[in-house]
Amino acid sequence: MTASYRAPVRDQRFVLHDVLDIAQYSSLPGFADADADTVDAILEEGAKFTEGVLAPLNKVGDVEGCTRDADGNVKTPTGFKDAFKQMAESGWTALSSDPEYGGQGLPHVLNLAVNEMVSSANMAFGMYPGLTLGAAAALAAAGTDEQKQLYLPKMISCQWGGTMNLTEPHCGTDLGLLRTKAVPQADGSYKITGQKIWISSGEHDMAENIIHLVLARIEGAPDGVKGISLFVVPKFIPDENGDPGERNTLKCGGLEEKMGIHGNATCVMDYDEATGWLVGEENKGLKVMFIMMNEARLGVGLQGYAIAEAAYQQSLAFAKDRLQGRSLTGPKNQDGPADPIIVHPDVRRMLMDQKCFVEGARCFALWTALQGDLEEKSDDPAVREKAGDYMALLTPIVKSYLTGKGYDMVSNGLQVHGGSGFTEEWGASQLLRDARITMIYEGTNGIQALDLVGRKLAMNGMRPITSFFAEIDAFVAEGGNDETQAFVDAVAGCKGKLKQATDWLMNNALNNFDHAGAGSHDYLNLFGLTCLAYMWARMAKTASAKIAAGDTDPIYAAKLKTGRYFLDRWVPEAAMHLAKVEAGADSMMALEEEAF
Amino acid sequence: MTASYRAPVRDQRFVLHDVLDIAQYSSLPGFADADADTVDAILEEGAKFTEGVLAPLNKVGDVEGCTRDADGNVKTPTGFKDAFKQMAESGWTALSSDPEYGGQGLPHVLNLAVNEMVSSANMAFGMYPGLTLGAAAALAAAGTDEQKQLYLPKMISCQWGGTMNLTEPHCGTDLGLLRTKAVPQADGSYKITGQKIWISSGEHDMAENIIHLVLARIEGAPDGVKGISLFVVPKFIPDENGDPGERNTLKCGGLEEKMGIHGNATCVMDYDEATGWLVGEENKGLKVMFIMMNEARLGVGLQGYAIAEAAYQQSLAFAKDRLQGRSLTGPKNQDGPADPIIVHPDVRRMLMDQKCFVEGARCFALWTALQGDLEEKSDDPAVREKAGDYMALLTPIVKSYLTGKGYDMVSNGLQVHGGSGFTEEWGASQLLRDARITMIYEGTNGIQALDLVGRKLAMNGMRPITSFFAEIDAFVAEGGNDETQAFVDAVAGCKGKLKQATDWLMNNALNNFDHAGAGSHDYLNLFGLTCLAYMWARMAKTASAKIAAGDTDPIYAAKLKTGRYFLDRWVPEAAMHLAKVEAGADSMMALEEEAF
Repeated sequence: MTASYRAPVRDQRFVLHDVLDIAQYSSLPGFADADADTVDAILEEGAKFTEGVLAPLNKVGDVEGCTRDADGNVKTPTGFKDAFKQMAESGWTALSSDPEYGGQGLPHVLNLAVNEMVSSANMAFGMYPGLTLGAAAALAAAGTDEQKQLYLPKMISCQWGGTMNLTEPHCGTDLGLLRTKAVPQADGSYKITGQKIWISSGEHDMAENIIHLVLARIEGAPDGVKGISLFVVPKFIPDENGDPGERNTLKCGGLEEKMGIHGNATCVMDYDEATGWLVGEENKGLKVMFIMMNEARLGVGLQGYAIAEAAYQQSLAFAKDRLQGRSLTGPKNQDGPADPIIVHPDVRRMLMDQKCFVEGARCFALWTALQGDLEEKSDDPAVREKAGDYMALLTPIVKSYLTGKGYDMVSNGLQVHGGSGFTEEWGASQLLRDARITMIYEGTNGIQALDLVGRKLAMNGMRPITSFFAEIDAFVAEGGNDETQAFVDAVAGCKGKLKQATDWLMNNALNNFDHAGAGSHDYLNLFGLTCLAYMWARMAKTASAKIAAGDTDPIYAAKLKTGRYFLDRWVPEAAMHLAKVEAGADSMMALEEEAF
Repeated sequence: MTASYRAPVRDQRFVLHDVLDIAQYSSLPGFADADADTVDAILEEGAKFTEGVLAPLNKVGDVEGCTRDADGNVKTPTGFKDAFKQMAESGWTALSSDPEYGGQGLPHVLNLAVNEMVSSANMAFGMYPGLTLGAAAALAAAGTDEQKQLYLPKMISCQWGGTMNLTEPHCGTDLGLLRTKAVPQADGSYKITGQKIWISSGEHDMAENIIHLVLARIEGAPDGVKGISLFVVPKFIPDENGDPGERNTLKCGGLEEKMGIHGNATCVMDYDEATGWLVGEENKGLKVMFIMMNEARLGVGLQGYAIAEAAYQQSLAFAKDRLQGRSLTGPKNQDGPADPIIVHPDVRRMLMDQKCFVEGARCFALWTALQGDLEEKSDDPAVREKAGDYMALLTPIVKSYLTGKGYDMVSNGLQVHGGSGFTEEWGASQLLRDARITMIYEGTNGIQALDLVGRKLAMNGMRPITSFFAEIDAFVAEGGNDETQAFVDAVAGCKGKLKQATDWLMNNALNNFDHAGAGSHDYLNLFGLTCLAYMWARMAKTASAKIAAGDTDPIYAAKLKTGRYFLDRWVPEAAMHLAKVEAGADSMMALEEEAF
């Protein structure tokens, strides 16, 4: 019953080629290999793989889930193992990884487009390679040469899996409380003992080895976050040839029963004097883990809009097919018993909300990923600095805004289905159940908002946000034509309110830190809205220029129409968010705890 | 792990006694028996029953669900049958029903308070008596004396169950398409044949008989909604003594797999020349069914805030218990390893949002239920007319605003739990899964919004909304004191925007009906917000007067503080909704269907 997933290749090409014009970066490493034809070919192949192999397994994963035997072995749903093998062997997981370790070194921005397809088609599945590559990134950043040679090629190819182990039963957000301990051994290794929970992809049957990155406290280390170190703890200890050898003393102690992403094994992991090796410096583990976390946060933001894309496709197909009632302006399907429900304005509202969000979010996510490329690859220090600032500033926004709004859009998709949405038969409910985790994991959306107002705004003397505002101001100063000036005005309006909210926080939060916390959620949402308005303005200008140049591809007219809906129906939220930020903390914190 | 449900008796008493002052209606039938002591005793007993009997079965219902055997018999979850018996025998289901048929004739407003407890404790369970009483109401309104004598006493006591059968596979909202047919028999009965789907409580093992109200088309009747009649179709045909006799030829053909309310049997019902009797006039079935629907819609609105109350309690307990991080303004739990997360502003935000919504919604729902009492029982025709107008006008708002926002609040409750919210262990996910249906059934929220702008606004020459505006204007003219004037101003501000939105629709929607549909969602939300602002202003004035009179109960100060949060954080949404209404249909309808 579920509509088949179709990868939005045309829309991705619009962003990559027309809006971001990635060809302009052809002098940078990796981009030279990503000419337009190559990009298009990769997108087409990615579409085939995700539509043909991953999407059909999405419901299977939900219904079957993962199962664990008494020894702690975990079986993934039917078909996952084979799909994982296909994915690895086709090189999809190595797309933008370092060529030194077998990666293809292509731009991150292209890799993100492919990852969007993976997450839309089968989010629970996509987490297996996703976490593996995140763990590989942390090892690449902080591992020794030996560790990198040993682990990276096999992780990048997904011959081996990878995980991140942070949470313990009594500590999630507050990692300073963690208790897992590491005891140094004479040979330079450590014995790791403790329990970790909510470990996504923690144990499974798809890879010949699983490389766990585990936060633990070396005996005698300081309390709190200053005494946390990172360890690499393989399921099978590599032998002298680098092949899986002795079984390490760790195992999956249980699987969480969750409301969604059943296809991903969320494990309790028990480490019982398991052998591990330090990654990076002693007591500096959190810093390394945040390399992985930041990459993972961008990946979660991507999931947020990718699953909204899947919901949009599903609900659109339903709305075109389901006949019910007649258009308010006269029958549109004269010969049928009723009109398709897409004729009804309120159904349109839910579809257009999804559509304008997903397209804006895609542009925002790809633009952000491009900053990652520039930070890493540009030969101009000023460009690298600005791109690095943007990555720091935008990561919490990508994570929270795209998952929070993405979830709302998935809920819209379900609502379009009416009663069918609430039954498990149609698939809309699975998307809703799956999507709900994105607002929580890799740091809840509230934590992201606090990261934004508490750390990212003020960092480097407010350099990142100053730079962002300058870019917007320059864009606004350029102006638009008859068709696009409204978009430019909307960006100016949102930016003005964001600036006012920023100033309010700067002027008030230092006297009372609670003002920062109280406004953080709405501040982040105002920021996200401003980013999407900027993206829509860029898309509109691009589309308008294409039309003016005589390009008759209907996508350009559709972009302008969808963008105008965004101006009418999303931009009015900016003033509301500003008012809430400026309300401050007083009424929020006034009620005594016992009066709740 | 789930926090135990505690019925909010003190808050309900605040609304019933202090705000609505129901004692003033003691001259009306039923109210004389509802003096303050009786009301309080009933609430306390209701609390005991729902906390002690229904709440513990909520998770059981979710985990076990209902099961159907090959013959179509349906087994409810462990404990449901006994709880249903207890509920019926204690007279809870007969509280506000007609004494002529064994009801206690107490005010609907009191009954609603008890129903809130039932829905908070176990929503899926509450639907069994809820639908039974809805079906009874339709029979009471349109049945023959014989039908009423035969069915009402046993339905009001829930010795027998009841259902409503509208939907068919190809028609939900658009009932004009329905195909179930009724063939007249010589004895005055009909043979009913067809398939109905999504029939809540359609078949189960808790009552000795189930009375189905079924919409069908009599052979030869006109097409569309003008040819639909209503039939009473008992599972067991009553014998001459009124006891369950011959088994009728109807059965449950399947159970839906749903994302929530697993404890309620959602049935495919197959009627195979089943014997039924006409209720009301031929071809006028829809009108009668809407008596039941309107009652059911208010009941769903109640579920919306009742389940948010359950989520609030659950997340509040978690937020007070979970230690994680330190307050931004310095440690609050010095001796502990961390502070309880309720110290964090963003957690407070989610709790305060839930709290101010639930308390405002409770007042709104009880106030609306009181209109039902006045419409039915007042001896003043002007009061009856106004109350009837209010019921018509407010029903779609109660249904949609309280379920839409209620769902968002349940999602907030889940979010407070962080990762624990996504696991099934804590119960937050069940509430979210259960709550999602309330935005859909008894007419989707979009249909309610269309009912509001398309029918209710213009009815009787705009008499209902004119009357509502006049009440608000008079309230605003009264003004407030230093403490409450801000509440009065907020009501005035919301009302002004609602008036502007109303005028916009009146001036534009007649030229293009799509403008009405395009603005309906935001118009309804603006209306709901205005109603809650009005309720908060009334609560604030009540609390302020109590404090001025020397009452030291801390609930009054808490009401003022919670209300001020509502002013700061909810009222700013009014302008946004107005802007969206005034955006009209153009950008919403501009995109050609094939360009989606």
